[in-house]
Amino acid sequence: MRPQRRRVAVRASQQKTEDPSKIQTPLSAPAKNGRKAARPKEEPPAPVSAWPKQRTWSEVAWDRFLESAEDVGSHLGRAVRELPSTKAIDSLLVAGKRSGTLRLKSDKPVVVLLGSGWGAHSIMKVIDTDTYEVVCVSPRNHFLFTPMLPSTAAGTIEFRSLLEPVRVANPFLRYVEASCDKVDVNNKIIYCTSQNAYEDGFRPKFEVPYDLLVVAVGEQPATFGVPGVDEHCYYMKEIPDSVGLRQRIQQQFELAALPGTKVEDMRRALHFVVVGGGPTGVEFAGTLSDFLREDLKKKYPELMQFVRVSLLNATPSILVQFDEKMRQYALENFKRVGVEVRNDTAVVEVTKNTIKLGNGEELPYGVCVWSAGNAPRPLVKELAASIPEQAQYQPGGRPSKLAVDSYLRVIGAKDVLALGDASLFVPERLPATAQVAGQQGAYAAHLVNRGFALGRGGMGQPPPKKPVEKLTLTDKAHAALGKTILEEPEVEKGVAYYNKAFEFVNLGILAYLGNESALTQIELPFGRKLKLAGELSYLIYKSVYITKQVSFRNRVLILVDWVKAKVFGRDLSNY
Amino acid sequence: MRPQRRRVAVRASQQKTEDPSKIQTPLSAPAKNGRKAARPKEEPPAPVSAWPKQRTWSEVAWDRFLESAEDVGSHLGRAVRELPSTKAIDSLLVAGKRSGTLRLKSDKPVVVLLGSGWGAHSIMKVIDTDTYEVVCVSPRNHFLFTPMLPSTAAGTIEFRSLLEPVRVANPFLRYVEASCDKVDVNNKIIYCTSQNAYEDGFRPKFEVPYDLLVVAVGEQPATFGVPGVDEHCYYMKEIPDSVGLRQRIQQQFELAALPGTKVEDMRRALHFVVVGGGPTGVEFAGTLSDFLREDLKKKYPELMQFVRVSLLNATPSILVQFDEKMRQYALENFKRVGVEVRNDTAVVEVTKNTIKLGNGEELPYGVCVWSAGNAPRPLVKELAASIPEQAQYQPGGRPSKLAVDSYLRVIGAKDVLALGDASLFVPERLPATAQVAGQQGAYAAHLVNRGFALGRGGMGQPPPKKPVEKLTLTDKAHAALGKTILEEPEVEKGVAYYNKAFEFVNLGILAYLGNESALTQIELPFGRKLKLAGELSYLIYKSVYITKQVSFRNRVLILVDWVKAKVFGRDLSNY
Repeated sequence: MRPQRRRVAVRASQQKTEDPSKIQTPLSAPAKNGRKAARPKEEPPAPVSAWPKQRTWSEVAWDRFLESAEDVGSHLGRAVRELPSTKAIDSLLVAGKRSGTLRLKSDKPVVVLLGSGWGAHSIMKVIDTDTYEVVCVSPRNHFLFTPMLPSTAAGTIEFRSLLEPVRVANPFLRYVEASCDKVDVNNKIIYCTSQNAYEDGFRPKFEVPYDLLVVAVGEQPATFGVPGVDEHCYYMKEIPDSVGLRQRIQQQFELAALPGTKVEDMRRALHFVVVGGGPTGVEFAGTLSDFLREDLKKKYPELMQFVRVSLLNATPSILVQFDEKMRQYALENFKRVGVEVRNDTAVVEVTKNTIKLGNGEELPYGVCVWSAGNAPRPLVKELAASIPEQAQYQPGGRPSKLAVDSYLRVIGAKDVLALGDASLFVPERLPATAQVAGQQGAYAAHLVNRGFALGRGGMGQPPPKKPVEKLTLTDKAHAALGKTILEEPEVEKGVAYYNKAFEFVNLGILAYLGNESALTQIELPFGRKLKLAGELSYLIYKSVYITKQVSFRNRVLILVDWVKAKVFGRDLSNY
Repeated sequence: MRPQRRRVAVRASQQKTEDPSKIQTPLSAPAKNGRKAARPKEEPPAPVSAWPKQRTWSEVAWDRFLESAEDVGSHLGRAVRELPSTKAIDSLLVAGKRSGTLRLKSDKPVVVLLGSGWGAHSIMKVIDTDTYEVVCVSPRNHFLFTPMLPSTAAGTIEFRSLLEPVRVANPFLRYVEASCDKVDVNNKIIYCTSQNAYEDGFRPKFEVPYDLLVVAVGEQPATFGVPGVDEHCYYMKEIPDSVGLRQRIQQQFELAALPGTKVEDMRRALHFVVVGGGPTGVEFAGTLSDFLREDLKKKYPELMQFVRVSLLNATPSILVQFDEKMRQYALENFKRVGVEVRNDTAVVEVTKNTIKLGNGEELPYGVCVWSAGNAPRPLVKELAASIPEQAQYQPGGRPSKLAVDSYLRVIGAKDVLALGDASLFVPERLPATAQVAGQQGAYAAHLVNRGFALGRGGMGQPPPKKPVEKLTLTDKAHAALGKTILEEPEVEKGVAYYNKAFEFVNLGILAYLGNESALTQIELPFGRKLKLAGELSYLIYKSVYITKQVSFRNRVLILVDWVKAKVFGRDLSNY
């Protein structure tokens, strides 16, 4: 989600200071104590690892304001510009072979963006396509507002209301519907395979050389080694998951309604199981129970007595992100709506009609939704394994997410950024949420737009830099107001360094529980939290999610869907 | 479509007369000429085949008015009634075996309705579920407003806006999601297979004994023996066709946009071919061209130069239902929007990337939509073949549609009605349209509701009848005002006959051409026609289709879809 410009929590020290020697950063050596230097130039320069320097609240606010102004400018600029003409295709493709290298006949540096999720979408909205040739490679051709995906399975919201095609998000970048198989960070080339195949089965492959790479591919659902999950369960991650789930739910009802069906078979068919006690599982269980109690009851009134919804959670408690009282509220709400919550319940196997639990119990089920957690994608693990400097950051030595430094640079690689769920932010432990990815995406776009050379990533490495003579008006404005640039003549004459680490502003968390109740936990300044549970919280949930929509179109479509669901009930179609 | 109560064209004679001997029906022997009988009872009774008697305009109008009042009453009655309770399931199912006979523990006669299209939906909305146990068996669980299906493939309308689930159309009938494999008209049993299967692959089968059967299964797309159509073409008949087509269209664009694609491959991928010059093919070609020119152009601006749309028609002219001038207008419109129309062009084979024409030419294509005509379903053909009396009505001796008499009774079978595309109305040649099926469905429902025993179908058979003492107030009202009952004491004492043949009121035809132009040809009284072509016609097209929606919900949803498409453009999502 986009960072809100007006509310900024300042990490660590609240002191206003302009003395570099007094500034401390989390992982740097403490500066010299005591001495107040009147003339900074006489101090020996702080080691490069002391950067980025801590900034004051107002400096951060000015910086964000300037960034917003730039973003608005780029949006307006795109709106009045003509769409890429036909010439574009001749300059970008190599005709001749069925597969090939994407050679961009362009003077502009090439930025390759892998992904189309929260982080990548955040970047693609504001990245400077005048300065860069931006190529987005993703097997999924649209951005998806994932927190509301459970609502689509219940028919409250339509699939199209939650998505924005990449080509619509920014018509001036080049999108290729393909997945990246491999990244060669030394030669700066990615290898991709088309997501679509020709009618004869041929699936093109191609390579894209890059100048700058952004890895924002996210994660994939984790099965935790439980057999049968892939074959028999539905994930709650992408639209096709939800499409299939929506059909399957009603097919179960139609099967149960057939003449001659045994009651035992009816109960099995109408047992809906959700595995996973995090916000996704809880929201889906709540939404499903609404759908059953309010809409499917009208369509299959004689079958409702056989319906059962269970939520299986392997840990001692659901919703660990929330406080204890709020978890209690969630449990009571589930009791009210008839969802059976079982904590400390691990699933060890899923067969085509039975779920086997850790304690030996077997649950007959009709539909199982697996939202138990995420794991890194093979591409990310392979990339992490291929970079030696990554090894020390991988848990238990096994390659996992890409470790990144304060500037989101992949540690050990040159000119590669990583963000979102695919990355591990070394300076601070961050949750794997859409909020984080969105803020990191905006940060990365502004870093790239400002034209600083990234350099090699690493906790002790110099920040991104550029020659002083290349500083633009924008840079100088930021330098004056936002303090995002430092010159260090003693370290390297004529070089300006990027004085801005990524800062995560935690705006809070929301979870829908069903029955028009939600949990809201909003971070306020000075370490306070605003905690709400119930119907007011549900109103906040709805208004926040409407506000956070990525486009006016999505906002209107979702509002229309909500009104339609209120007036006519949820969509009961099944085709 | 529902017959409009206010406008009725009176077939044949315009004379007002109440003298039975002067009335002529199309297939009956002419009545005696000249003699004006002052006392009808002295005339020898007209032979039974002289029925149904011709009715005057006002009698028909009163009859329709009475029917409408009954319909409104039944709708209101359903609205205030409680939904079937849980008891219903115990009374209707046989528990125990995995497959079985649907035994309805009910005193009420069982009416089995096969189908969920225009004819069946018309019936299910008004059939009397108090008097009858109504069971609807159809593999498709919803009614679909087929004329607007092409719009869904282009993203103007959403799929859900065009459908009404059977269970929502009438919650008081019993719906089973299954297809009927075989009808035994002598023992009055149907044999069915479930549309859905259990997770282990088991697909239940069952039988349903009936007292009265209505066959309204429609037709299926005809391939005319052309190889490759089933494997490679998209039909435009059901929602899944449109879903697949919508995805495939954009996949072709994404394939064409891949790096290294040869221009020749781009042209092939972006050649969209429609086979069939009837209203369905024409509407789809027009809608597709709108979608390409207005919406896809924004998403893939650099690819539009390679796009091509062709309409292949085997006959000398498209839209034979319309007059010559209107067909000319349609051709000019297609020229304006860039659709290439080829008449007298037969397709002899479809391979995975080529369409072979009758003249030997080969067309490379990306997507092919086959809307060249319909053919009877296997169930209908087998049923026609199993009834000896059907043989004389089958063209060329090969079993085809079910021949029905003036009362929609299947000729040669007892207590079986057939209507819509599955039937051949012997008294008059009727087009195979939604309008006809809708009017026939309403007719059939009222016939059944009135409780007349159908008897055996046949052109010389007595009409449906009931004992005079069983006549209700409604019957007497119809008898007095609408003249739909006859008593013939000389033929059979104390028996009242149903004096109402099915009358088709042709309200006209519409076709959308693309580019906000349509053709309208409306039948007016006295044999006149109102013919319009162009944008006014398009407004009429839209208002007629909005009016003809089967429910308020569909009306609102379509209006909202139209507004949304106008404001934000058509839906460009592709998942």
